[in-house]
Amino acid sequence: MIKASENNEYYELTSPTSMPKASGFLWNDNMMIQVNCRGYAVAQFMQPEPAKYSHAPNLEAKTFMQPEQPYYAHHPGRFIYMKDEENGEIFSAPYEPVRVLPEKYTFAVGKHNIKWYIEQDGIQVEMTITLPKDGVMELWRVKVKNISNRKRTFSMYPAFTVGYMSWMNQSGEYNEKLQAIVCSSITPYQKYQDYDKIKNFRDKTYLLAEETPFSWEVNQEAFEGEGGIHSPSALQQEALGKGDSRYEMPICALQYKLDLNEEEEKEYRFIFGPAHNENEIETIKQQFFMDKNETGFDGFTEAEQEYEKYVAAGRGCLEIHTPDAGLDNMVNHWLPRQMYYHGITNRLSTDPQTRNYLQDNMGMSYIKPQVARDAFLHALSQQKRNGSMPDGIILHKDAELKYINQVPHTDHCVWLPICLSAYLDETNDYSILDEVVPFDGGTETATVYQHINLAMDWLIHDRDERGLNYINQGDWCDPMNMVGYKGKGVSGWLTTASAYAFMIWADICEKNGELKNSQKYKEEADKANDVINTYLWDGEWYARGITDDNVVFGISKDKEGRIFLNSQGWALLSGAADESQKAKLLKAVEEQLESPYGVEMLAPAYTKMREDVGRVTQKHPGSAENGAVYNHAAVFYIYALYTAGEKENAYRLLRKMIPGPGLDDVLQRGQLPVFIPNYYRGAYRQIPRTAGRSSHLFNTGTVSWVYRCLVDGLFGVRGDKDGLRIEPQLPDSWNEASVKREFRGSQVEIELKREAGVTETEVYCDGVLLHDGILRDIEKDALYKIEVKLPFNN
Amino acid sequence: MIKASENNEYYELTSPTSMPKASGFLWNDNMMIQVNCRGYAVAQFMQPEPAKYSHAPNLEAKTFMQPEQPYYAHHPGRFIYMKDEENGEIFSAPYEPVRVLPEKYTFAVGKHNIKWYIEQDGIQVEMTITLPKDGVMELWRVKVKNISNRKRTFSMYPAFTVGYMSWMNQSGEYNEKLQAIVCSSITPYQKYQDYDKIKNFRDKTYLLAEETPFSWEVNQEAFEGEGGIHSPSALQQEALGKGDSRYEMPICALQYKLDLNEEEEKEYRFIFGPAHNENEIETIKQQFFMDKNETGFDGFTEAEQEYEKYVAAGRGCLEIHTPDAGLDNMVNHWLPRQMYYHGITNRLSTDPQTRNYLQDNMGMSYIKPQVARDAFLHALSQQKRNGSMPDGIILHKDAELKYINQVPHTDHCVWLPICLSAYLDETNDYSILDEVVPFDGGTETATVYQHINLAMDWLIHDRDERGLNYINQGDWCDPMNMVGYKGKGVSGWLTTASAYAFMIWADICEKNGELKNSQKYKEEADKANDVINTYLWDGEWYARGITDDNVVFGISKDKEGRIFLNSQGWALLSGAADESQKAKLLKAVEEQLESPYGVEMLAPAYTKMREDVGRVTQKHPGSAENGAVYNHAAVFYIYALYTAGEKENAYRLLRKMIPGPGLDDVLQRGQLPVFIPNYYRGAYRQIPRTAGRSSHLFNTGTVSWVYRCLVDGLFGVRGDKDGLRIEPQLPDSWNEASVKREFRGSQVEIELKREAGVTETEVYCDGVLLHDGILRDIEKDALYKIEVKLPFNN
Repeated sequence: MIKASENNEYYELTSPTSMPKASGFLWNDNMMIQVNCRGYAVAQFMQPEPAKYSHAPNLEAKTFMQPEQPYYAHHPGRFIYMKDEENGEIFSAPYEPVRVLPEKYTFAVGKHNIKWYIEQDGIQVEMTITLPKDGVMELWRVKVKNISNRKRTFSMYPAFTVGYMSWMNQSGEYNEKLQAIVCSSITPYQKYQDYDKIKNFRDKTYLLAEETPFSWEVNQEAFEGEGGIHSPSALQQEALGKGDSRYEMPICALQYKLDLNEEEEKEYRFIFGPAHNENEIETIKQQFFMDKNETGFDGFTEAEQEYEKYVAAGRGCLEIHTPDAGLDNMVNHWLPRQMYYHGITNRLSTDPQTRNYLQDNMGMSYIKPQVARDAFLHALSQQKRNGSMPDGIILHKDAELKYINQVPHTDHCVWLPICLSAYLDETNDYSILDEVVPFDGGTETATVYQHINLAMDWLIHDRDERGLNYINQGDWCDPMNMVGYKGKGVSGWLTTASAYAFMIWADICEKNGELKNSQKYKEEADKANDVINTYLWDGEWYARGITDDNVVFGISKDKEGRIFLNSQGWALLSGAADESQKAKLLKAVEEQLESPYGVEMLAPAYTKMREDVGRVTQKHPGSAENGAVYNHAAVFYIYALYTAGEKENAYRLLRKMIPGPGLDDVLQRGQLPVFIPNYYRGAYRQIPRTAGRSSHLFNTGTVSWVYRCLVDGLFGVRGDKDGLRIEPQLPDSWNEASVKREFRGSQVEIELKREAGVTETEVYCDGVLLHDGILRDIEKDALYKIEVKLPFNN
Repeated sequence: MIKASENNEYYELTSPTSMPKASGFLWNDNMMIQVNCRGYAVAQFMQPEPAKYSHAPNLEAKTFMQPEQPYYAHHPGRFIYMKDEENGEIFSAPYEPVRVLPEKYTFAVGKHNIKWYIEQDGIQVEMTITLPKDGVMELWRVKVKNISNRKRTFSMYPAFTVGYMSWMNQSGEYNEKLQAIVCSSITPYQKYQDYDKIKNFRDKTYLLAEETPFSWEVNQEAFEGEGGIHSPSALQQEALGKGDSRYEMPICALQYKLDLNEEEEKEYRFIFGPAHNENEIETIKQQFFMDKNETGFDGFTEAEQEYEKYVAAGRGCLEIHTPDAGLDNMVNHWLPRQMYYHGITNRLSTDPQTRNYLQDNMGMSYIKPQVARDAFLHALSQQKRNGSMPDGIILHKDAELKYINQVPHTDHCVWLPICLSAYLDETNDYSILDEVVPFDGGTETATVYQHINLAMDWLIHDRDERGLNYINQGDWCDPMNMVGYKGKGVSGWLTTASAYAFMIWADICEKNGELKNSQKYKEEADKANDVINTYLWDGEWYARGITDDNVVFGISKDKEGRIFLNSQGWALLSGAADESQKAKLLKAVEEQLESPYGVEMLAPAYTKMREDVGRVTQKHPGSAENGAVYNHAAVFYIYALYTAGEKENAYRLLRKMIPGPGLDDVLQRGQLPVFIPNYYRGAYRQIPRTAGRSSHLFNTGTVSWVYRCLVDGLFGVRGDKDGLRIEPQLPDSWNEASVKREFRGSQVEIELKREAGVTETEVYCDGVLLHDGILRDIEKDALYKIEVKLPFNN
């Protein structure tokens, strides 16, 4: 069973008859950990690039997090083996690696911690993981309770995997003084120039115990023996062997002996993480475990509480109550949390892609606008003098552009006004336009206003003779890398997106009193829209682009990649599509792209390489960009639908983005409704068996746009130069809803209700009708009570 | 039990009471596979860089093969599950993943195939793997025999793991027409420039079956279920589920149902490997499996026989019979095989390190001298105009210098005369000196003689004011990377090695009639030896070098890295050490470096970074270059001992290089005596528990030097300008021995015997005493019978 806990603090997976692979994640300023219901875990921290302290058993490639990465027997994990000392029977909490399906089982994914409750054979085990608000460590509580009606004797073995730390140097031993297992390694390198980088790495992994263990084992091979990780031979012995690891794979395994009377319980606390040296572990021990009885100061508990506050600080600006409980829970609890995670950690990258950085920070406009503001200025400070934006934004002095950021993409500029507009709507802080920011690597400076003009002008000039924007080696779609690598191919989507960006920028200019400039960009938007309609309207929908060899693609005569979602939604946003075109493209999307799990990015998915389109056509059909329900694309479309007043369509698709609840959905999609993944497997018409599966990746530009859909669209509580513009687009099926909106320091409480006799939306503040739906003259700390009357079937 | 099979075709590990992790390996022109006694396998092929067709379950880093890499539950492997259809009991051959220790068990590592014989529960399973002589595929025979005294019904499930092929695109399905499981993937890449490289990769993995299976499963998760790889849930069913993999981890699992009467047996044949496409698999099917009954042509068997011949062609030039059966077996069977592997495959690298390439090909002088000749010319064609040699030799047009070959080392030139001299001794082919070879990247050419003069002159000039050779970022010892990176540090060893190289080159020049040049390099050798004695003699042994900051290291006052083996042995070779120094250094090596598993490379092993020495000091104590019994260094020392007439010392240390036989030794060292690994774990005095363990890596410059020790030293059957110089250095404990020596097209059969009354070695040919021990005027195809009389205790 899957359900939200009573106070919505957790999402709970309870007593399944088969074990899914759902996961939750925690993060802080310095690290991220994804733990799944079985006990597997992926944790990364920054030094400055992502690093691990619990490794795979083989040499793992350093790369971005992989979609749908399978778990396997020796996957890193945090396990508690339990052995009944009377009969030798063994199970492990939470589930792996022994895989005894417990009699009772709950996996409770919370915002600031994640818990498992396991009942098996008269013993209750409760495991809780949380993080401190900074620092890189896992704080674990393990509670064991005797719920059988007799005295019981158990051994409990926390076994936290460390894995193959390094081929250069790895070892591990129990440190009596620290009461910790300390595993040491040296990050391999071959060039002496890298020594300076690695010498200060936190290459040790430790498991620090509050309570003195009965015994321990640090040598993974000695621990497992021939029994294997699922039935370790060492557990057959009275005591673990107190072994060490010398250039052998270490494990942090401890043993505690428990004699528990009926209903007696005992709690243990552990800290697991990386460290530079023993001194650092000693300091952590002092801070979290020592002195607590003498001074009453409990560093561990305080850290837990601090972390709870840290996460709570990331709440959004909406609190909703609607007939859709699943949506309420996602919007009130999980969505802002995921958005906050993006804004705080920048996806644990030192060089986030520019478009990601801007969109992730767009989301921070709804949580901590100052963070968004700083980020926009930081990004612009890396703009080139010619107006173009780099492919990634460097966040750390030692960082460099890596992976995909070494491939030139042409869309980064469009995100500047688009993302900025959300910030301006939310804050009305037009002063940002006057901020003076340098260009990349130079002493020359310009105002934000000038910077963005330059960016827009770069888009105007990076075009072919028809007025279509060059795609080079990719636009928003990274792997569309061979459409224009010869320098001729163009992106239909980017041309449309440019039109939309010009329109948005024209609007911002106008509101800022720059009327002439506003006019210029309005005209540019119109021109671009004309060009789109001239070259890319295929009769029933818009084409995706034109290749280096002048072949239009994403059109009806293509057998694969016939229709692309982004080309349709953005033509609604930019205004390129007229009413007839709109009707046609809506129909085409519904017929060809919509699936039970959302709207797909393109269809039919490519099943073989198309060399004039590129890498996207080689990706697995239904995966990532090749026909997946790629939520980032889907949400643009939903946003466009709201913009176009297509509220029923929009809500239907929005709703498909939230998984579950329900075990069937978790088994198919593989996740709880605690985050929106970057994609669900698509190609529904081609490979229905696997459609709907979650990528399990929670890094995605989707989330800030989902939030923007709620603010600007569904609940229609968007900021405006004049105040709060209230124009909700509730689905017909909702007869009422309420929204608490934090806005520019005020609280706005909105009750929405359909009423017979009402013919169009009526907005009242304290009983007074707001004729244009705009709440004006908003005062800080004020409370506004808004009543919205809606007609039925509007 | 461990023993050589009767005909010495196999080394066998039989019915152990616990299962070790010994392995064997097979290779051909295009691939290499290392299989271990448990069923795990690592296979690599070239396209052009090393690639895999059976992967780890996670994204594995592309890197060189790792020492002591641990196996783990989901490690790639080739398994045969057996299910008794009457009672549902399961075991797996050879051992993993079910881990039932069979009633009878033999792991027989052969030269041209590797076999397992398993008896369990009245059923015998025999598995045999071989390779074709070219092409990348594994040829498998699986024979099942009912040895219980009643009819039996079984399901047999070959389960060959495929693993995580690619995050970009992976799938798998059963192909009815091919009777094969075909798994497809696309190698991930991000830059369009890489598309050209990857588009022709053999990214498919197939398991081709001769016999139609009863059922199959291609989906690893469906195969395992919650039972896991050690007890797959799919085996609980009547039939495997005929599932496919769509962006899921594939496995090649087949099911055969067997009804076997008493003593009845049935054989199955399979082919496993990578392919470009289905057509290629179809062609393989035709070649190996089809038509065999109609035309009597059995391509599979023929390929096995061809491969046997291919491996047999790699026999050496010695066949020995001595009181030391273990040595006989290693020398007659395994050592030339390993040497041949190096010469043929160049370690499956496209850019072997220059010193490795030269030494590996030095070994080919004893097998196929033409290969060695071609390799020396190829290497010289990449020499720079200033005489220096590049860090790696490019073997493929698409290859580039990678990993360690991007770090500048200063020793490559010394190997030219040293390795060439073995070729000249063996062939007397001084015409190679007149070959005209270009320089790297230019049109300019020079003779080999001129090339090597330039190399020697480069060594003479790449020195400091004292006459010591700069080390830059490493010499023979790669990770000694911070001794001289600032441009001042020098290598004692390299100065000594240069002296030795000058001496060797002087000798070659003299024999080639270039007396003036010979005199020049003799003087250079003397000068270098003087310099060594002036700056690097520490009183009891030679120092290893002097750092950038003018600190001498590898000396008595150092607490770690006090003595380095190479500095001692090469001082014997170069003639730097006088008799008194020789005695002292021999004693120092024996006291400080010798261990039960061989002689260590340095001691005490470093336990912490020494920044003025470098990365070597950060390696795990006892591993690789930091205090291991690094056989490449050990064998230089042994060679030096033979050169210095220290035959007892030499034999004792040589003998320690060959593991086993004996299960204890296999459990400690982890290998059968079928190859010499690059190291055994050292630091014996610091970490005795782990000392002696094999790295499991069979790529090592050691083997050609071991062979040279046998030819030039132990059996003293070295070639000479005049003929075959016979001056054996048998250990005192041997009273007789015989050697068949292939030499310049003739057969020389040598009987060695100690006789009372003999006071010095007497060599007779057909009863005639050869006064200087040299067999002259050797004729092709002739047979010479030599009798050698030796005194007792010489």
